[in-house]
This record gives sequence, structure tokens and C-alpha cells, in this order.
Amino acid sequence: MEKFRFLTSGESHGKCLTAIIEGLPANLEIDVDFINSELKKRQGGYGRGGRMKIESDTVEILSGVRFGKTIGSPITLMIKNKDFENWQKIMSTNPEDETDEKAFTTCRPGHADYAGSIKYHQKDLRNILERSSARQTAAEVAVGAVAKLFLKQFGIEWSSKILQIGSGKTEEEFHTEIDNAKAEGNSLGGKIEVTYKNLPIGLGSYVHWDRRLDGRLAQAVMSIPAVKTVAIGNHHAYKMKGSEYHDEMFLENGKIVHKTNNAGGLEGGMTNGEDLVISATMKPIPTMQKPLHTIDLATMEETEAHFERSDTCAVEACAVVAEARVAWVLANEMLLKFGGDAMREEP
Amino acid sequence: MEKFRFLTSGESHGKCLTAIIEGLPANLEIDVDFINSELKKRQGGYGRGGRMKIESDTVEILSGVRFGKTIGSPITLMIKNKDFENWQKIMSTNPEDETDEKAFTTCRPGHADYAGSIKYHQKDLRNILERSSARQTAAEVAVGAVAKLFLKQFGIEWSSKILQIGSGKTEEEFHTEIDNAKAEGNSLGGKIEVTYKNLPIGLGSYVHWDRRLDGRLAQAVMSIPAVKTVAIGNHHAYKMKGSEYHDEMFLENGKIVHKTNNAGGLEGGMTNGEDLVISATMKPIPTMQKPLHTIDLATMEETEAHFERSDTCAVEACAVVAEARVAWVLANEMLLKFGGDAMREEP
Amino acid sequence: MEKFRFLTSGESHGKCLTAIIEGLPANLEIDVDFINSELKKRQGGYGRGGRMKIESDTVEILSGVRFGKTIGSPITLMIKNKDFENWQKIMSTNPEDETDEKAFTTCRPGHADYAGSIKYHQKDLRNILERSSARQTAAEVAVGAVAKLFLKQFGIEWSSKILQIGSGKTEEEFHTEIDNAKAEGNSLGGKIEVTYKNLPIGLGSYVHWDRRLDGRLAQAVMSIPAVKTVAIGNHHAYKMKGSEYHDEMFLENGKIVHKTNNAGGLEGGMTNGEDLVISATMKPIPTMQKPLHTIDLATMEETEAHFERSDTCAVEACAVVAEARVAWVLANEMLLKFGGDAMREEP
Amino acid sequence: MEKFRFLTSGESHGKCLTAIIEGLPANLEIDVDFINSELKKRQGGYGRGGRMKIESDTVEILSGVRFGKTIGSPITLMIKNKDFENWQKIMSTNPEDETDEKAFTTCRPGHADYAGSIKYHQKDLRNILERSSARQTAAEVAVGAVAKLFLKQFGIEWSSKILQIGSGKTEEEFHTEIDNAKAEGNSLGGKIEVTYKNLPIGLGSYVHWDRRLDGRLAQAVMSIPAVKTVAIGNHHAYKMKGSEYHDEMFLENGKIVHKTNNAGGLEGGMTNGEDLVISATMKPIPTMQKPLHTIDLATMEETEAHFERSDTCAVEACAVVAEARVAWVLANEMLLKFGGDAMREEP
Repeated sequence: MEKFRFLTSGESHGKCLTAIIEGLPANLEIDVDFINSELKKRQGGYGRGGRMKIESDTVEILSGVRFGKTIGSPITLMIKNKDFENWQKIMSTNPEDETDEKAFTTCRPGHADYAGSIKYHQKDLRNILERSSARQTAAEVAVGAVAKLFLKQFGIEWSSKILQIGSGKTEEEFHTEIDNAKAEGNSLGGKIEVTYKNLPIGLGSYVHWDRRLDGRLAQAVMSIPAVKTVAIGNHHAYKMKGSEYHDEMFLENGKIVHKTNNAGGLEGGMTNGEDLVISATMKPIPTMQKPLHTIDLATMEETEAHFERSDTCAVEACAVVAEARVAWVLANEMLLKFGGDAMREEP
Repeated sequence: MEKFRFLTSGESHGKCLTAIIEGLPANLEIDVDFINSELKKRQGGYGRGGRMKIESDTVEILSGVRFGKTIGSPITLMIKNKDFENWQKIMSTNPEDETDEKAFTTCRPGHADYAGSIKYHQKDLRNILERSSARQTAAEVAVGAVAKLFLKQFGIEWSSKILQIGSGKTEEEFHTEIDNAKAEGNSLGGKIEVTYKNLPIGLGSYVHWDRRLDGRLAQAVMSIPAVKTVAIGNHHAYKMKGSEYHDEMFLENGKIVHKTNNAGGLEGGMTNGEDLVISATMKPIPTMQKPLHTIDLATMEETEAHFERSDTCAVEACAVVAEARVAWVLANEMLLKFGGDAMREEP
Repeated sequence: MEKFRFLTSGESHGKCLTAIIEGLPANLEIDVDFINSELKKRQGGYGRGGRMKIESDTVEILSGVRFGKTIGSPITLMIKNKDFENWQKIMSTNPEDETDEKAFTTCRPGHADYAGSIKYHQKDLRNILERSSARQTAAEVAVGAVAKLFLKQFGIEWSSKILQIGSGKTEEEFHTEIDNAKAEGNSLGGKIEVTYKNLPIGLGSYVHWDRRLDGRLAQAVMSIPAVKTVAIGNHHAYKMKGSEYHDEMFLENGKIVHKTNNAGGLEGGMTNGEDLVISATMKPIPTMQKPLHTIDLATMEETEAHFERSDTCAVEACAVVAEARVAWVLANEMLLKFGGDAMREEP
Repeated sequence: MEKFRFLTSGESHGKCLTAIIEGLPANLEIDVDFINSELKKRQGGYGRGGRMKIESDTVEILSGVRFGKTIGSPITLMIKNKDFENWQKIMSTNPEDETDEKAFTTCRPGHADYAGSIKYHQKDLRNILERSSARQTAAEVAVGAVAKLFLKQFGIEWSSKILQIGSGKTEEEFHTEIDNAKAEGNSLGGKIEVTYKNLPIGLGSYVHWDRRLDGRLAQAVMSIPAVKTVAIGNHHAYKMKGSEYHDEMFLENGKIVHKTNNAGGLEGGMTNGEDLVISATMKPIPTMQKPLHTIDLATMEETEAHFERSDTCAVEACAVVAEARVAWVLANEMLLKFGGDAMREEP
């Protein structure tokens, strides 16, 4: 059912991350600097650890674009892992390079390690953690940046913000919370909000459950690593009475308007002309210097999980990823609604 | 990507609701009484209005089942709308029956009416509201009941409960809240929680965003009419520190266990052996006796939206629908993981 | 990736055939008489057996249409099996009705019986043959008729013809061939051709293998029961030289034209402005009065497969089904290309 | 509905071809030499032109494989275009490199040029031909090689052969035909056949049209560039009588066997235990030295299409691509049937 479709690939310490996007119209201008600025945003934020200094992600376009514009064929985006040179042997595809170096058998709670090792029959947890790492979101942000370039052509705008980190609710508190958590080797989560403006009325539909935009957005945002809740509009909806919550309609200069937006821009699973507002909460990062009690799968003995290097908080990155993912969903909906093989004007 | 797939259809006052399910294995016992008991649960709950007394839903199986067992071919479920006899002319498919009776031009805030009328170019809002009505969830619950019958064969169990209605947090308070809201012609939302037990480890995957079970569940639950938030596991995750939140692992009689389940049974987008716990909040029902300010699309004048008949609160029904939808997702995941064209033992 | 999607269901002697179609725009006029005339065509043709006299298929629309027009919600089509009254016990969904009457253990060569019994673990081959019967194509023709009504709005036209039956190549020879085959209890196949006219240029695409229209059409036509080959355009392509085969381009009154259409209207997997021409061959019907050597799965002994009632030739029906299936594919492509939630003009 | 899914990308003279494969189990051994030998086969065959000497395709694995085995995460395959160094400016993604060099406005009959230019609003036909080139099949063959490595684990075997080139039916005649065509600047098509052995009974299904294996195979093979017909089993089916065509069943040492295989291993859209035999015909290559009459879209004048470099015949390559595509379909069906996240034995 997707018009805008893509696959991403790549391990955290592998050679590169790759994405192939298929289904975008021809003649869309692709601004590489914009994609790179999105990648940079994902890497930023107070509370990030050492990895972010090693990698400074930039995208290379390998197909689908000529002289700055899409030509209708699939677009390939590649982000090299700059750290790969130090991991060539350990992450080698070659059977002759097989080694136990950097092998890993202690399950880290909160990660994919345990379930992944059972699902995929892996003894070396590195074979799980390399892909389950949040690094895969770099490719996703690049895909989202391309989707945003498409949406921008229709006047659609977006923004995101951090609503909470730990128990802090202002930027100043965010920093204090993070500093304190870092000092004790701990980690923090938080809450973010994404807004998209100027969407046409009637994206999504109530006619079948899987056409509803609320559901599609929820899938896209909930499947961000570490996200545990997703909300559309006012979080307090469930505690409000109908008379308080619902967005009444008025005429203003002959135009229909809502004066409130508790619904977050979605009624009946469709955009209703108001800003689309979606928020999410993120659990604290599971990679911590403070050790967690766990099991070593090789020895089947209890032990502690501990790690050299880690972020304390990645809530800002989460907002960037959420923006990107919402862009995927909206790009697909725009294409389903309006069709189109090429951008209307040939520049 | 779906193995378990289905379509539902039907208008609220049309002849019937129908669902076709495709992809279930042969030799699965289909207990019609169980499906009907699920339908009955959906209709129950304190605070429901008059419609629930008119319809007492029962399913008729039109295909795919012989002598009580699936045969591999698509299963058709039909739920007749008992009220249809009073609506035959108004809901006729025949162009010669065209009438303005029961036509509807006043947008009800919180409903699909406004966006739907624009999206589908409809002047008579009945053409929107008939399908956007929550009545379509009856067919969905029937589909979910079939999915549950499949899951049950693997020892999987489920339950759901109401966590909050308005500001009430106990059953006694639920009733008081509802009585008060009803008295003032108002409506209420609330919060529900669904639990599935005995799931195998490793349903879902972290390898690609759309394989993650958290996202798939979020889509299924968020797209329930009136649901506005979805959460996996402990709602307070975002305020907790990593050392408080993460579910540490221990050995108990040689078996790996978590002593807590803040993660709600999902790590890395996969089941981890603990109970799957998903919760959702529902906005207050938008159909209220207390009128809301709105627009009449025929006259383009401001007016009030008011309605004869309505529920005050449908949170209990929401829990039933959420259980059903989680069953869809899990049935599909079980089929992807284990394959299989027929239930292992022919009874 | 489908915009126009549907599921069909129903066993040959069950209560009914059903289809749910999702994704068509609102305000499309649905002419029930047209659907019924298509169903009638499927049942006709020289060489059909007794069943065609028992059933005279008519469709009932159960949802998605109001006052003769679609409203955007899923469309349910039902075709009752008139013969069902004689099969109520034998095809009962109720476990208490279980019976061996009409049970069936002798595999009919050329049918799904043998592979189906193994795949779905069935001892009674009736559980296979009821769905694998070509009767399921009645629902498919109904779906195709709805797709045609959509295509017609764009001025698209269609036709089909029989090119060969057995070794007969003219209508007169068709009848002689069929009469002779019938006399000896034998069966015949043949070759048919479907043409669609006035398609816009650029349906389908070369950018990814699964966007190509030739492949999508081939799937739709090859999966008609008994079809064994599918061809686009001139069947002799493979024996021709490039200079003979390729459709050269000319200007005629300033318009680009091809003077030949060996390509069958598709170049690069896309419509090129010429008539779309797709042909198919059908194997002889496998249900014959002349017995075939086979196995009884209950006794695991060699035996003969023989049958009371049968068509001698169903090539005309095949043409009708092929027309319908091409309509599905084209309707989806038109929706992908042009988008649209509602037909442009509200009548 | 796909378990085995992938996207390919890349232009003919761009930097590289890329494919991402998602959905294969972990612990599958990936033999890079085998993939390269498949790529080499695709490039071979009597009658190929100069390009095949420039490129000697080899694959680089960028993700999803560690120490020679899959780890469950998406697999990225890259094939560099060795010729790219000469095309860097012409195929640049950078808007500043925009140039008319190698621009192209004369539609080549038999190619995507004309329809593509209209669909994607392109004036420079290079933007069409770069992706519509058959070079994209190199990535497809690499994907097919990975699918074959999976199938091989189940004892499945494959082969293909050329049945006809032009009017030649033996290898000696093939060469004569090609030599003659080449001498006159002409091109040839032909007919190929692919066989897969040792498939389990019951891949595919009759229960819904899009589950049928015949249709899925037909899509995969018909969408090979230049293929115009696809056939399952005996091509003469349509001319045969039922008593001659159908594969009767016998017992041999207690095992059910067919003594003939006119059905090509598929009955009821499912594998029936016999060899799967699928054949296809290919039109003559449309790029020819002998010019075809056509239109220059820039001047809208009639002209001739002619080309420097070309193959005379690519039927052998077609067989290799067809083998690969059948492998895709079968890999997906095996995964749907048997499920599985990891190969059963960890070697």
C-alpha cells in the first residue's frame, strides 16, 4: 500500500549505512546540504557521548539523482561509518577473518541482546547489537530529509521540541538533569513533540483501520528505538469531558476554523486542517556506566552489564528521528492522495 | 508483508458488517460461541446508550469453515445490522431511492464529518458518518476473536482492564463519573490496558523499522476510533533513570527471568518472554447531548451540533477492541515466525 | 503497494461468494445491471455443462454504495450460490453436521486435489476442491466489473476474443471441436486475447521490477485457473528480427504515432499510447468424463478419476475473467498515477 | 505479503548498482564467489557487445553478513560500474555539473524512452534510459544468487537452457543466426526455459488469486526487460485434449508419481512435486545498428534512431535473469511456508 517505500541497512561498526528510496516523483530538487544538516542535528544535543565526535555523518547519493534533481529511479543514500577503519577485521564479511575479538556474551538489559540472540540463534551478541544500535536511525533521518524536501514543495512546514528530560521541563533543567545523571553514570529519557503545518485536509482515512493516519504515525514513531509512548494532540484527553476536549468549529472571514487543537490535527484518522501534533516519550538509554544485573549467555551465570562509552541522554536525537519518520508517512499520503509521477513544474 | 490479512466493510445502518480473513492455517477449530461472546463484550459496559440494546450482534460464517474447522480458504464473517429494516430506504444502494431523509449537514466536532466531507466530496454527511461510526469495530472484534482462537492453540492468553475513566480510578468511581457525565449530557474517555501472556521470545524484530512489534502494535491500537495515546509498559519510563527503569535479569532454577517488567515485554522491538503490556487512552466520545459549536456546511452558518442518542462512555468497548487488534498483530507474527499451512495435529 | 485492493471468498457449494473492495474513490456510479451482465457473460459460452444452468449469478451490494454511487467506504459484493439449499448439510460450518457424504478421496489430475491435500492436511478432498473450483472467478468478475466502471469514466474501453479452441481457429471450427470433444467425454483448452484502448501513456514503470505493468498483468492473467501462458503483443516476437518487430514512430498531423503494435502497447513496462493487447492460453479443463489414471488417497491404491458433470470447454469464460483481471490492475495503476479520493465531478 | 523483500537501484552509467535484501534468516552462508559467478554468467553469451568487456561485475557486501554468514539484518550488495570514471560529469548528482553532453532526444522504438519522457516529464532521454537499461538486471542477479544460496540449503536445484534464438533451435544454429544478424546490424530474440527441482509440495495456493505461484512466477519473469511471453509447462497445452494433457498419477514403490509433467510442476497454483518448468520468450533487442524510424522530441521531427554500441542477442543473459527471479519468488514462498528466523543448524 506504500507509494513512498524504502529499505535501510547497515551495522553500527560496519562499512556504511545505506538506504534505497523508491516511489518519489521526478524533478524534485535534492539539496544535499539539507540532508547533511539533518544528519548533524541527529548527532547533536546535550548529553551525547564520544561516538558522536568520531562520526560526523554526511550522505553520498549513489543513484536516482542527476544534476540535483530526481529522475524517477530509486535513490540510494550512503553514510559511511568513519570508525570502520578500526573495525575492518572485527566486522569483516569474510569467513576467514572470523575472530572472537570484541565478541560479547553478556546481555544488556533494555537492549535487543537477549531476545535477539534467541530469535536469530546467535552466540556472539555483537551480531545482534550491531544492527539493533540506534545508529540505524542515521539512515532513517536521511530518508526523512528527502521526504521533507518533497513535502516542502507543497508549503508544508515542520518543527519539534523537547518537552521534558527526566524530571526537568525547561532547557536549564534539562542540562542540570543530564549533568547529574552523567555524574552518577546513569541515563535519562524524556518527552518530545513534533508539529507539521499546512497539511491538506483529508490525508488518511476512516474507511479502513490501516488507512487511518493516526495509526500510521503511531507505528512510525513508536518503532523509534527507546520510544515507549506516542500521543496525538492533548495528552490529557482521557481525563477531560467531551465539552472541554472537542475542538469546536467557527467561521472566520468565511473560513472554517477551530479555535483549539486538542485533537492534534486529526479527526476520524484524517488531517482536519489544523497543525498535526504528535508527541512521544523515550525511556532512559539502556547503555549505562552504572552496571545492571544480568546474565552471561556463554557461562549462564549472573553478572553485570557495563560499557565503556555511552550517551547519557538522546532525547534531542529522538525528536529529529521522529520528525523524519512523520515525514515518511506524510510523503506517502501526499502521493496516494495526489498521485503524480513528476513534480508539476519542470524548472 | 502480512500473512494474516483481512478486509472489513459495512455502514452503521447498512444491511450488515462483513469481514474476509485470508491466511489462517487449515484445521483450526472455530468456536462461533466464542466469537459471539466477544461481540457481546464489545456491546457491554457501563455508560452505553440505546443502540446497544437494539443490536445484539451475532456472527454468521459464510465461508472458509467446514464442520467447525478452517479449511485454508478465506473466512467470511457477517454481522447483520438488526436495525436495518428501519433504514432500508435511507441506506439503499438503489439510485431510485435517493432521498434527503436523515441527511445531515452539520459537522460534529471530534468526528470525521468535516474532513471526510472535503476528502470524499460529500454534501450529505451521512455518507461519512455511516462508515466512520465506531460500529465498524464489531467486525474488527469478530476478526480478533478468530485470531485469538489461533493464538490459544499455542497456549497464549490475554486479558484487559480499565485503568481510568474521567478522573475515576476504581470501578466505583467509574460509575459515579459516568452517572454525573450522563446527567449533564456530557461524555467521558479513559485509559485501558491489554496484556498477552505466554508469547514466544522473538516476535517482531529490530532489523528494520517496520518489523518492530512495538510499532505494529501501536498502529493497531492507535487507529481504534477515539484512541489518542498508546504506551508499551510502564508509562513513567520517561521520568525514570536508567538504573530504576531497566528490567534486570536473573537466574531462577537455571532459567533466565526478569523480576520487573517496565519494558512491557518488548525489548528491541521484540517479545522478551515477559507479559506483553500495552495501554491506551481514549478521548471522550464526541457524540454528546450537550451541544458543541460548529458549522452547517449547507448554509455555511454557525450552529450547534446535537444528537438524539449516544453513549456516555465507551471505554470498556475500547478495551475489547484493543484486545482484538493486538490479536491480529500477534497472529500475523506467529505465522511469520513459524510458517505453517495447517495446524500441526489433525484432531 | 496497492491502492485498489480486495479480497474474495467462498466455496463452490457454500452459501455464497463474497468480495470486499477497498480503495475506490467516492462518487463513482455503480451500475448493478452492468455487473450482472458481466456475470452472465462468464457463465455463457459454447461447451459449458449443467452447473451453468443451475446458477444464474446476480450480485447483491451490501456496503459502500448509497443511491447508486460509491461513498468511499469498502464495497461488499455477494453472489449467492443458488444450489446451496441442496448442500446445506454437506457444506455446513457446524461441527455437529460432520458427515462423509460427498467426501472425496480420489485425486483428480490437473486439479489442486493432490498438492492441496498435502499442503492443508486434508483427508476429504472436498475441503480442497470447493475453493479451488473455478467458481471463485464469479466473485473476481464482479470485482472486475466495478473496476471497469471506474476505468470507463476515463474513456477507457475493452474487448476480448477467442483466438483458438483445440485446433479450431474460427467460430465454426470452435463448435465442431467442442462437439467432438464432448462426444468422446474429453475436454479442450484454447487461446484468448484481451484489448484495452485509450489508456494514458505511462501507466507502470521501468524503475523497479515490481512497478512494471507487463509483470503485473502477467500475474493477474496467469493466475486464472487453467491458464498456462501469457503473452504481451505479437506472439512471434522471439522469432522476428529487431528490424521487423519494433514499432517505428511517425508523425501524423503533429501527433506521434506507431503504425504497428507488435509491442502490445507496452514499452519499458509502461503503456505507450497504443492498445494494450494481452493474450493467454488455457489448458484443457481437467474435469472430464473420460477417466484419468490416479490414486485414491484413502486406500493408497491406483484408480480412475471420473465425474458426473462437467464443462467441455470454458475458454469463453476465461476471456471474461481475463478482461476482469486486467481491469483490476489498470484501476490500481490509474489510482497510483492520478490519486484522487473522489471522482472529479459530483454529478 | 512478502517475507523476502528487496529494493534495487542504480543507473547504467552511474557510480554503482545497489540492492538491499531484507527478511532472510540468520546463519545462512553467503558464498561471494558464487554470487560473482552468477554475475559473470549474466555478462556472457554469444552475441554480446562491447559493454560486457568493459564491466566485469563483482559484488561487494556492505552489510548483513559477518564472517561469511547472514546475521538477520538487511544485506547490502553493491556492484560498481567500472565505466563510471568516464561518466562522472555526465552522471553527476551535482546541479553545478549540469551539461548537455550525451543528452539524448531521439526516442528509440522498443525502449522506455518515449513513454518514460512523458511519464516523468523529462526532455533529456538519458534520464530515462539510464535506469531502463537492462543493466539493472545485474543487481537482480546478485539478489537471485543470494536467494539461490538459501534454496540450496533445502536441496533445491536449478538449471536453465536456451530453446531458440531467432529461428535457430540448436547451439550451432544459434551462432549462425547471431552472426548473420550482427552482419546486417540487426538483433534477435529467443526462447528460454528454467527448471527448479526438489521443491516441496504445496508452495503457493489456490485460496486467493495472489497466492498462486503461477501468477507470482509470471510476474517475476514477464517483468524482465524484453520478455513478452511466459509459459508454465508444455506450451502446446491449449491445443491438446484433456486426455492427452493431464499428468496421470501412479504408484511407484508406494510413492505417488506422475509419469509426465505437462503441467510444469504446478497444479492449482501450487507445486505438485514434479519439476517446476517455466519458459519465456524475449523480443529482439531494441538497440540496433540498423536504424529505426522515429521522432526527435526536441525538434518534433521524424528521424532515425541509431546507436554506437550494442549486443546482437541477449537471450543467454535472459535465462540467467529468469533463474534469479524464480529464485526470489521461491525463497519467499519457502519462508512463508516454513517460517524461521535462523537456519536450523548453526554450522
